[in-house]
Amino acid sequence: MNVENLLADRTKEMDASAIREILKVVSRPGMVSLAGGIPAPESFPMEIISDLTDRVITKYGSSAFQYDPTEGFGPLREALAAYLREQDIPVSAEGVLVTSGSQGALDALGKVLISKGDPIAVEAPTYLGALQAFDPYEPDYIRMDTDEDGLIPASLEETLQQHRVKFIYLVPTFQNPTGRTLPLERREHIAEIITRHDALLVEDDPYGALRYRGSTVPAIKTLAPDNVVYISTLSKVFAPGLRIGFCVAPEEIARWLVIVKQGVDLHTSTFNQALAAEYLTGNYLEDHLPRIIALYRPKQAAMLSALDRYFPADFRWSRPEGGMFLWAVGPRGMDMEKFYLKSIENNVAFVPGKFFFTDPDEGHETMRLNYTMADEQTIDRAIRILAKVIENNR
Amino acid sequence: MNVENLLADRTKEMDASAIREILKVVSRPGMVSLAGGIPAPESFPMEIISDLTDRVITKYGSSAFQYDPTEGFGPLREALAAYLREQDIPVSAEGVLVTSGSQGALDALGKVLISKGDPIAVEAPTYLGALQAFDPYEPDYIRMDTDEDGLIPASLEETLQQHRVKFIYLVPTFQNPTGRTLPLERREHIAEIITRHDALLVEDDPYGALRYRGSTVPAIKTLAPDNVVYISTLSKVFAPGLRIGFCVAPEEIARWLVIVKQGVDLHTSTFNQALAAEYLTGNYLEDHLPRIIALYRPKQAAMLSALDRYFPADFRWSRPEGGMFLWAVGPRGMDMEKFYLKSIENNVAFVPGKFFFTDPDEGHETMRLNYTMADEQTIDRAIRILAKVIENNR
Repeated sequence: MNVENLLADRTKEMDASAIREILKVVSRPGMVSLAGGIPAPESFPMEIISDLTDRVITKYGSSAFQYDPTEGFGPLREALAAYLREQDIPVSAEGVLVTSGSQGALDALGKVLISKGDPIAVEAPTYLGALQAFDPYEPDYIRMDTDEDGLIPASLEETLQQHRVKFIYLVPTFQNPTGRTLPLERREHIAEIITRHDALLVEDDPYGALRYRGSTVPAIKTLAPDNVVYISTLSKVFAPGLRIGFCVAPEEIARWLVIVKQGVDLHTSTFNQALAAEYLTGNYLEDHLPRIIALYRPKQAAMLSALDRYFPADFRWSRPEGGMFLWAVGPRGMDMEKFYLKSIENNVAFVPGKFFFTDPDEGHETMRLNYTMADEQTIDRAIRILAKVIENNR
Repeated sequence: MNVENLLADRTKEMDASAIREILKVVSRPGMVSLAGGIPAPESFPMEIISDLTDRVITKYGSSAFQYDPTEGFGPLREALAAYLREQDIPVSAEGVLVTSGSQGALDALGKVLISKGDPIAVEAPTYLGALQAFDPYEPDYIRMDTDEDGLIPASLEETLQQHRVKFIYLVPTFQNPTGRTLPLERREHIAEIITRHDALLVEDDPYGALRYRGSTVPAIKTLAPDNVVYISTLSKVFAPGLRIGFCVAPEEIARWLVIVKQGVDLHTSTFNQALAAEYLTGNYLEDHLPRIIALYRPKQAAMLSALDRYFPADFRWSRPEGGMFLWAVGPRGMDMEKFYLKSIENNVAFVPGKFFFTDPDEGHETMRLNYTMADEQTIDRAIRILAKVIENNR
């Protein structure tokens, strides 16, 4: 049948996502992938997973397999509220919404808040998955300037003066794709700006717990609680395949998030929420998190020292204190997609940075490097190959 | 902060769903609920669930907890394709998309196909959850006439002559809310009509496997394969809390469903998909389904005989050969919501049928009765009370 004229207007404008094509290459045999954003499988607490499933089945029986309220499984909301309070985000169980990954929270926010053409302010570069969640609601993205410390507050101020944005979207800690973290003074400045403009900030924090050194910076949610929707996930500290995200939103927004989530998936898997509740309340997370960090810290160190050793002198890269990504920037005018094509011929994959910019003219000289999946030796070898590819083809 | 002016246009028009308020009442202590659409927890295969989790953990290890392709977990797609082929729906694993409940398929279809104001044809009455999935995309619903055998083909023909509908949405077997099933001749007629008009039909089939007597009717998908998106779920034959739905769509639509699903939740829980794969490939479903049927058949019989015994002579009700619902219709002019309020005072809840109609003037004299949750004695008592409430308040 003729499908073309059945598609919604929004669909006709959607991209078949070039990055999907890139990530397909990654699964080729022999490919070393620095491209993904995927936790190492060794970071999952497999040694306790059978115990957790047994405990859930014994404790909750059939109710762990039954329909459940859209807002989330009661014991998990309790556990997440306690977890958030430890991070100085004061919230009760009723204030926590469980979502199907943090992606589910981003989709619901897009649906509740974005009408076609609404301005949404994002960092340049920003998280691609957020754009994929928002795109179907057809916003206009307003790009804001960043530097090594993340969003530049003056750029936010200017954006809010010039546009009535529906919200600002930020990943303030160990950002995807750059690994950058907003320092405390900038967070305070940003909190002051959004409060003064009565603007809404969506603070996406999937990586905050993965800190390898340095000291914790408070969430912007703690500095401007009424103006921030805080989103996080258990994907990086438990297991991504369980799809457990959560968010804390101003009440008038949370109410609508629940209504739209009901239309999207009724609720997130009860069984997986019960597993997550046991993981948190059994204090497994606090035992396990140091092991995840001990797994990733040397991988990051290996990548940083390989970059120091092999990469061209005219490249710069981030040195984040945690997270899953480094961001490397070549000289202006460089086209990283050209090196990407050569690089996969040599069985090393990364993501050209331009995909993380809303302006198609930006970021051609940038690349995102992930270090969580490969071992230290392989990381060293891959960066050496990548450096050679760049040298030989520039 | 002032949230009102941040809401999207679609949100301002969304209902805070009166039925949500009704279903809240259901959980009051002492309430007998004929209101829900919830499988009995005794219908879940709890005796094998520990075995299934162990097998998944042993067989797939950490990959059952890792990110997975948006399209679905490979072994589950294989198993679902085999399951669908048994129902004469010819499909390969690549043709099956796994969704987060069938709700996830409905949301994705709405997103891919509906622009504001697009006509969507639905039965009067229709499944409320589908309306909740489609509503945020702001369609115009075109209501089609039904009788005891479901959709009247002449009404479909007239609708397609008068409107360029994006799609027709039907629950052809043991419909929610009426329990009605389209007979084979109507299915053939409907298949002929949609093929001739090159129209798209969304066939939602959550209850087809729950047949208590009579013989199976083929899915419309088998009669007009190119013009039908077939949606089903394991919620009624395994466990709803796992949120496993699936669909088979024409390829040009499936491609877009994957792209929008990626933005909504990346993918459905890998672990739960692996559990479902083991459930299907281990032949547990074929062992277990007769037990679910043996559990529900007497409940339905109890409700039907209680209706015969107690209900007013001027009421009619459906006598479906399967599913989870009966549909009772009082005399014209009756307001079932009035009885609803009296009925919950007597600790019996049902859903007034008007919520299942897109035209607010329709269905005031109707009610949906669910029989899967209560035992036979309680069902008998509840119907007796309900009959008394109607007698005493008319």
